[in-house]
Amino acid sequence: MHPTNPLVNSTLTDLYQLTMAYSYWKAGKMDEEAVFDLFFRKNPFGGEFTVFAGIDEVINFVSSFEFNDDQIDYLKKGPLKGCDQKFFEWLRALDCSKLKIYSLVEGTLAFPAVPLIRVEGPLATAQLLETTILNLINYPSLEATQAARFRLLAGFDKKLIEFGLRRAQGPDGGVSASRYSYIGGFDGTSNVKAGELFGIPVMGTHAHSFVQAFQGLDDLDSKTLVDTEGQERDFVDRVLHIRNTLGFTNTNEGELAAFISYAQSFPNRFLALVDTYDTRRSGVPNFICVATALKHFGYEPIGIRIDSEDLAYVSKQTKKMIQHAAKIQNMDLSGLTITASNEINETAIIEMQRQGHEIDTFGIGTNQVTCEAQPALGCVYKLVMIKDNPRIKISKGKITIPGKKEGYRLIGSDNTPLLDVIIKVGGEAPTPGKKFFCRHPFEESKRAYVVPTEVRPLHRLYWDGQGTAQQPVNIHDTRNYVLQQLREFRPDHLRPVNPTPFKVSVSDELYSFIHGLWMQEAPIATLS
Amino acid sequence: MHPTNPLVNSTLTDLYQLTMAYSYWKAGKMDEEAVFDLFFRKNPFGGEFTVFAGIDEVINFVSSFEFNDDQIDYLKKGPLKGCDQKFFEWLRALDCSKLKIYSLVEGTLAFPAVPLIRVEGPLATAQLLETTILNLINYPSLEATQAARFRLLAGFDKKLIEFGLRRAQGPDGGVSASRYSYIGGFDGTSNVKAGELFGIPVMGTHAHSFVQAFQGLDDLDSKTLVDTEGQERDFVDRVLHIRNTLGFTNTNEGELAAFISYAQSFPNRFLALVDTYDTRRSGVPNFICVATALKHFGYEPIGIRIDSEDLAYVSKQTKKMIQHAAKIQNMDLSGLTITASNEINETAIIEMQRQGHEIDTFGIGTNQVTCEAQPALGCVYKLVMIKDNPRIKISKGKITIPGKKEGYRLIGSDNTPLLDVIIKVGGEAPTPGKKFFCRHPFEESKRAYVVPTEVRPLHRLYWDGQGTAQQPVNIHDTRNYVLQQLREFRPDHLRPVNPTPFKVSVSDELYSFIHGLWMQEAPIATLS
Repeated sequence: MHPTNPLVNSTLTDLYQLTMAYSYWKAGKMDEEAVFDLFFRKNPFGGEFTVFAGIDEVINFVSSFEFNDDQIDYLKKGPLKGCDQKFFEWLRALDCSKLKIYSLVEGTLAFPAVPLIRVEGPLATAQLLETTILNLINYPSLEATQAARFRLLAGFDKKLIEFGLRRAQGPDGGVSASRYSYIGGFDGTSNVKAGELFGIPVMGTHAHSFVQAFQGLDDLDSKTLVDTEGQERDFVDRVLHIRNTLGFTNTNEGELAAFISYAQSFPNRFLALVDTYDTRRSGVPNFICVATALKHFGYEPIGIRIDSEDLAYVSKQTKKMIQHAAKIQNMDLSGLTITASNEINETAIIEMQRQGHEIDTFGIGTNQVTCEAQPALGCVYKLVMIKDNPRIKISKGKITIPGKKEGYRLIGSDNTPLLDVIIKVGGEAPTPGKKFFCRHPFEESKRAYVVPTEVRPLHRLYWDGQGTAQQPVNIHDTRNYVLQQLREFRPDHLRPVNPTPFKVSVSDELYSFIHGLWMQEAPIATLS
Repeated sequence: MHPTNPLVNSTLTDLYQLTMAYSYWKAGKMDEEAVFDLFFRKNPFGGEFTVFAGIDEVINFVSSFEFNDDQIDYLKKGPLKGCDQKFFEWLRALDCSKLKIYSLVEGTLAFPAVPLIRVEGPLATAQLLETTILNLINYPSLEATQAARFRLLAGFDKKLIEFGLRRAQGPDGGVSASRYSYIGGFDGTSNVKAGELFGIPVMGTHAHSFVQAFQGLDDLDSKTLVDTEGQERDFVDRVLHIRNTLGFTNTNEGELAAFISYAQSFPNRFLALVDTYDTRRSGVPNFICVATALKHFGYEPIGIRIDSEDLAYVSKQTKKMIQHAAKIQNMDLSGLTITASNEINETAIIEMQRQGHEIDTFGIGTNQVTCEAQPALGCVYKLVMIKDNPRIKISKGKITIPGKKEGYRLIGSDNTPLLDVIIKVGGEAPTPGKKFFCRHPFEESKRAYVVPTEVRPLHRLYWDGQGTAQQPVNIHDTRNYVLQQLREFRPDHLRPVNPTPFKVSVSDELYSFIHGLWMQEAPIATLS
């Protein structure tokens, strides 16, 4: 498999990966066995969880990793001018067949300090992957996390559609947004490309320009619609009759024509954008006339979309107008839905819920695709072991946990995840029903015994050098996996506002190991 | 020319563009002559200017626009299932040969309400381009604007490098960021792909992992370095001698080995990351030893990079340490530069300037590539005319200026831009030396006579249906064009904090036209 975006290849990287590779090569260190951990230090959006995503694309990247002739040529003449020619031969022959990559499963809820991905293999090769892997994990995980937060906020019974392609950060900012929003719990996207590439449900209606393109009923090419019995009947006449009956004769006629035209094209998918001229005085009345006529012809119109003003207030007003029209026509219009869009973010949803609203579907664009509240996740990729020697980095506030490690999720007696524990690979792993001593990685006094009901290993081999380790997972299954976890965790860990941190601990053995190394590497200051 | 990213093609769009196209086709309206304007309503980042960018990629997209067999097949079976088969034949045959596209020049400083792009041609075709064009303009313009703001803040004498690929929103979030940061005034990027694709200067050094990968001097394969006279000499010995002389014997030896190795690989590009273990007790002393040795061998080391703690404070401390070392060694080390990275944003730069700092180069990652302060620009694409009838949209807070329009920049007697004026195409244009009546588009009382010294037409034909209208512009020229404008505008329009709005006006004729249409289309409420 190749990456979805052909720009994803070996030179989509920071130059320093190549200058370091050159130094490793010159020092004869390029093949030293190294271990790198990819992890983050802080959950995004002030929350206490992250949905891990992007590993499938990472494996696609790794499996096709090479420097081709054109790339070598560019490097030789450009940023690596003057480097030894033999280095370029070495680079040309490079692939990832000597690497092993362990990772959390796509869609797993993840927490700070737990390695999301562990890369083992020759130092220079593993180093060369850093930037690209981070790029392929940071944004997907951020997107999936933002989507899961919207899902939790809106509730499992609402529909969430991602609308943000036009505001996304570049073309595949959009494509990735659609894909990972869906994984995180959205129901679909407006982005056709995401449907084409990944089989995500694609949804959409019409825009303001469509309404503006019609100036009156003369713009309609045909006045008829074939009803569900197969009979061609005068649809315009029916709409106008209803309009007279309901007294909605003062509405914008171009808008009415646009709605009729759209209903003629998609009689079973009629969802009208009602705020081009005046939502309550024109848009909703016009919609009611066309929707009622569709019902007369046997169709089930979908509803309306509002895209401006106070969405909660307008949704309630609109609902009342529809209910009133249903009553005086003695018709059942309760199936009509209200879709709201326009700069919806987490705060807006909380506020709408506080006010009460009648919105069934949220169309979320900018805030979902750009993750406005925090547009980047800070995953890092750190060397933790070389030639069997653990490595630690102790820059202020940026400490890494050294050594080759793996994680376990311990489940409590009520089937709720209790905490994650990181141990040294080969160390004693927790087992169900048995007391396990868990410690805070850095604070001596924080520790607990845990007796798990169930123990879930977090890491799986995703790349064995040959590409036979993992089958790609169906995107719908991944989405279900995320939704299942959103229901399984204690709600206070997941809630958007003031959540409780989910604990990440280390084994006693790993604790001693970290602190021993720390004392050894950190120079002691002399203050004077 | 094809778009840089192969994902950019006809199905990178919102589904509603296709459902609308179908309705237009069914209503026989698809070929009606339409005019769409692309514009924004508000400058980003609380600023008062925007750097327009992305038009080159738009033209690449338009020139290769088509629905191929695979795409038609997907639409037929997927989101457009049930649509008339003849529609798909029409869609298959579609191209942009009947369109004309006028646009600001890439890199032009732009202001709210001025059309950035005007698309003229068959209604359905012009409509189908909306989402993709917005995607290709919004993020590039945002990036270039953010870059220009950093350039203005840092000053024209500082070096700015974009470091953000790993944190970017997707792969070409990264590639676009590098490209449009450069256009907006950055000096280079760490992103190799951007160098390969666009010829942007690529820069880089090494990472923490490189330092960690060395455990001591035994890790060095060779102890020598060929000096600038061509003689191979013992480099390690020289470094250790200097280290003893300066009394820096307590530093981390792995770090020292890493610096030596890097200097051996890139003796003319030695820039050391000094904060892996302890900046002042280990990193800077180790750097001074290696840099001094390089000078002894005839090389010019570049300097250090700091990536944690209080950057302003550390830069001053570091500068002092280097000056002290220079003094006691009686050497000129004044050419050594300090590069700072780590979550640099506008506020951080302002604060560093307030404190005083010794930073020569800013490496800006997350905040430049994701535009954290406002991660999306809100360009919209609105129908303004159809079949020679002007169209207006009057949703609350989202009014559009109707009709086919073009803009002029009026320059004052001191060669500073005074304001932009929008007129109807074919209306009376401003001329140098002649009084021109300019009005606020919506507020009756705001108006002025302007006597411009120079009049610059803002719009150029970029697409004539054949691809012969414009030659692609050299990226370095575009960058110079941006820098020139940043120097030319009144500084109070461009300053990051509390800037003065740059005026955008309309001709008297256009003013009357807007307001006449507004009164005509807006229903009058009856309050009761």
